[in-house]
Amino acid sequence: MSVDYKQNALGRFIPNTVNGKEQTPFLGVGKYKPVGNKAAPPLATCADYPTDGNKVVGSLHEALEKVGLQDGMTVSSHHHFRNGDLVMNRVFDVIKEMGIKDLMWFPSASFPCHAPLIERQKDGTIHHIEGSMNGPLGDYASQGKMRGTGVLRSHGGRWQAIQDGEVHIDVAVIAAPTADQFGNCTGDRGPSACGLLGFALADSVYADRVIVVTDNLVPFPCVPWQIQGQNVDAVVVLDKVGNPEKIVSGTTKITRSPDRLLIAELTAKFVRAAGILRDGWSFQAGAGGTALAFAIFVSDMMRELGIKARFVRGGSTKYLVEMLEEGLTDFILDGQTFDLEGVRSMRENPNHINTSPFTSYNYHGKGNFASLMDAVVLGATEVDINFNANVVTHSDGRLLHGIGGWQNCLFSKCTILPIPSMRDRVPVIVDEVTTIVGPGELIDVIVTERGIAINPRRKDLIDATKSSGLPIKPIEQIRDEVFRLTGGPPAKPEFVDKDIAIIKWVDGTVLDTVKQLRINN
Amino acid sequence: MSVDYKQNALGRFIPNTVNGKEQTPFLGVGKYKPVGNKAAPPLATCADYPTDGNKVVGSLHEALEKVGLQDGMTVSSHHHFRNGDLVMNRVFDVIKEMGIKDLMWFPSASFPCHAPLIERQKDGTIHHIEGSMNGPLGDYASQGKMRGTGVLRSHGGRWQAIQDGEVHIDVAVIAAPTADQFGNCTGDRGPSACGLLGFALADSVYADRVIVVTDNLVPFPCVPWQIQGQNVDAVVVLDKVGNPEKIVSGTTKITRSPDRLLIAELTAKFVRAAGILRDGWSFQAGAGGTALAFAIFVSDMMRELGIKARFVRGGSTKYLVEMLEEGLTDFILDGQTFDLEGVRSMRENPNHINTSPFTSYNYHGKGNFASLMDAVVLGATEVDINFNANVVTHSDGRLLHGIGGWQNCLFSKCTILPIPSMRDRVPVIVDEVTTIVGPGELIDVIVTERGIAINPRRKDLIDATKSSGLPIKPIEQIRDEVFRLTGGPPAKPEFVDKDIAIIKWVDGTVLDTVKQLRINN
Repeated sequence: MSVDYKQNALGRFIPNTVNGKEQTPFLGVGKYKPVGNKAAPPLATCADYPTDGNKVVGSLHEALEKVGLQDGMTVSSHHHFRNGDLVMNRVFDVIKEMGIKDLMWFPSASFPCHAPLIERQKDGTIHHIEGSMNGPLGDYASQGKMRGTGVLRSHGGRWQAIQDGEVHIDVAVIAAPTADQFGNCTGDRGPSACGLLGFALADSVYADRVIVVTDNLVPFPCVPWQIQGQNVDAVVVLDKVGNPEKIVSGTTKITRSPDRLLIAELTAKFVRAAGILRDGWSFQAGAGGTALAFAIFVSDMMRELGIKARFVRGGSTKYLVEMLEEGLTDFILDGQTFDLEGVRSMRENPNHINTSPFTSYNYHGKGNFASLMDAVVLGATEVDINFNANVVTHSDGRLLHGIGGWQNCLFSKCTILPIPSMRDRVPVIVDEVTTIVGPGELIDVIVTERGIAINPRRKDLIDATKSSGLPIKPIEQIRDEVFRLTGGPPAKPEFVDKDIAIIKWVDGTVLDTVKQLRINN
Repeated sequence: MSVDYKQNALGRFIPNTVNGKEQTPFLGVGKYKPVGNKAAPPLATCADYPTDGNKVVGSLHEALEKVGLQDGMTVSSHHHFRNGDLVMNRVFDVIKEMGIKDLMWFPSASFPCHAPLIERQKDGTIHHIEGSMNGPLGDYASQGKMRGTGVLRSHGGRWQAIQDGEVHIDVAVIAAPTADQFGNCTGDRGPSACGLLGFALADSVYADRVIVVTDNLVPFPCVPWQIQGQNVDAVVVLDKVGNPEKIVSGTTKITRSPDRLLIAELTAKFVRAAGILRDGWSFQAGAGGTALAFAIFVSDMMRELGIKARFVRGGSTKYLVEMLEEGLTDFILDGQTFDLEGVRSMRENPNHINTSPFTSYNYHGKGNFASLMDAVVLGATEVDINFNANVVTHSDGRLLHGIGGWQNCLFSKCTILPIPSMRDRVPVIVDEVTTIVGPGELIDVIVTERGIAINPRRKDLIDATKSSGLPIKPIEQIRDEVFRLTGGPPAKPEFVDKDIAIIKWVDGTVLDTVKQLRINN
């Protein structure tokens, strides 16, 4: 079957249809204007639900029958348990036993723990996956073995796709560390505590039918009701829903690499020099070693300057929690907790606030929090001289990562990518990224161990830092230095002419495709 | 113009259309099954909103122009400021100046402070009002002077009507005691604090366009964001949005009437005798003098028995707050705060929980909290021998009250109406209520100063209390006693054959009509 392609605003060729659905090529940032109305879930009536509020059923099988699961439907799940999820493999085992086929699995992300779902693809239970595929599932798709095409979306893009009706969820499965019989549930407590459940919020609001799965049933009311029981059809109690050690790491580690520490320090010095670090500022940094080190450096600077942040955005870690508890920030606005201290703080600190992709990232809303941030510090696998960046594939073309909130954060007032200029002798600064995940116009600053490159569009930042003494240089100069050291640009990966995945932009248009690797076959 | 009527399941005649919309007659509790999907608000895009999140505009006029208000649209508002609202009269003054006509005003309730909106009806700015009309606006409608027909809905019914698309809100105006520039807002703090904003939640989620009006702008983020800025189009700052003394009463008063105290005590004794008062129970009682006295009596009993409630439902008052802070209840699940202590507790106590008509009352959801309550204690203007009850008109036919959450609470496991058997020598227990607002099948117990009547459907309650020594008697016997004392049934009001309002049931069907009073003309 031949596929028709259109070229998008960044010059990439985009298939007209993917998994049977028409696609719109990326038109440029802010150019695509959605028309029409939000998705409208079916009406329900209390007359069809137990008046005593007890929705507990005896098993996953019973719950899946109750909600009417059928061939070809879409089943969704969240990834707050990360690599410690004990629910979805069991769910698909039960579905296989029920003889139901050709499902679309729509997780907010999948992890190596979901490797058994390769078997559920082989036996026809799962048709294909839309959502990030980390590890074995991504490898399976990269080999061209998945029946449909992967669709990678940011956290905000996933909300947008559900809200806009691009993805219709028939059955949402929401694994919950604590729940009541009515279906109210929370992630901030219980033996499998994961902090929050924001990635499942859209599913609970828009799915036709919703199943909550918990290992910690508490008397009504379960508060905070991060997910509201009024959207829930059935509750299933299992012995164990998550593996705590793999849900959150007990400790989060700052990088010890001298290069990475230098990059983190340069990033902190840059935000100070640019006037971004001021009383009442805000920032987001992830849980990677460099980002954590950045948070430590700016914390020191804030103490020194006697200033505080108005809010910091999580993924929360013990470092952000320390900032909150020390008074270096008024609030943590958190989208997911990355360690046990984050979970504890979410439960205990009233100013550690539960956010969702709706509040933080949804581009088809009346604004969101991402664009209010003064600075965001993110990673990338590749950046090119047009400041386009890649987070899903490496230079060798392998699909290894999801998008997460990365695309959404690019709308921050200053987007900074502190990255090494090369990894394992492979250049990270390149002429053209393998896969465009972030358009260069939104990426403001690249910080490497060889110097800082500012996007020429940001004359304000160039002016503000020109007398700072920081090693600011054109990105082409960094690229040239790297190419000299590595012996030239990275080898181009060889692809088969088959899309194994597409990369959605935050507005539902298509930024790029990921092709099947020749080397894998 | 002649109107066609159909008889509903309770024998009342219901117009086929009201305000141009087709109506379904009440079919019986739980009999009407909604089909179709929820209302779907228009898609928005961040590209159309300020990236710095600042949605503040200079005036109400500017905001109303920005959201595109036009003739014939529906403008909604909430009633958390009760009789202290300073916003909606100003809004309609501005609309009048703009020359916009024939609006439908859709408040969650209106109060005597809104008397100036009679002028906005006379000058054509407002076409008609759907929502409870307390005081002068109700009187104006009762005289047949409002152009359209009033539609009275319960709090849950209002959510259901919005959610189901029966009422489309073009522009929601949300007065907020505290807000940020992005439109996040809360009711629990600020000079005009009213506790919470739950009655405006549906408006914020489903309206095409949303304007927040505040007198207390705080730096982003305003938390708790009871209303989320992602649903907000514009923010207007006024000098003063509410009159604090009229928003909440500083003190809430327990009845001193010996009869009312007796009724409250009998009610408390009944819930104990019936086995409802047990460790982990739950109840809802309003802010009226009798209900407050009931709460005091059951608190004493709980102390005596060494038990506590799992939750009590507010309207919160200082009495419920004392129960929470003393440990007599684990939670207050609150829908509106009735006094300053309620506002303080909502702000300070993590177990004083913000609820909305969605969580508590919406009948077109997958269950709600009302049916989980062990007992609810409510008022009524009339009850008939079939246990049908009335809360909107008096025996003289005057429309004096809204429905509030009253209909929704009837789904409690035990609905008790502690009421005097007569008021001002007019019988309250009658042969047939003037207006049916609650079907008798949901009303379990009537407690009067002359004895307790149990609905014959509730054999379980009859059995449980038969040896209690409580003065339990048939409702007909109470009616006969009252009629003997008052000289017979109340005089039938004389009506003109014109509907001035209809009474919706929680599922959107029509329970009854209210006719124009002949005496008023």
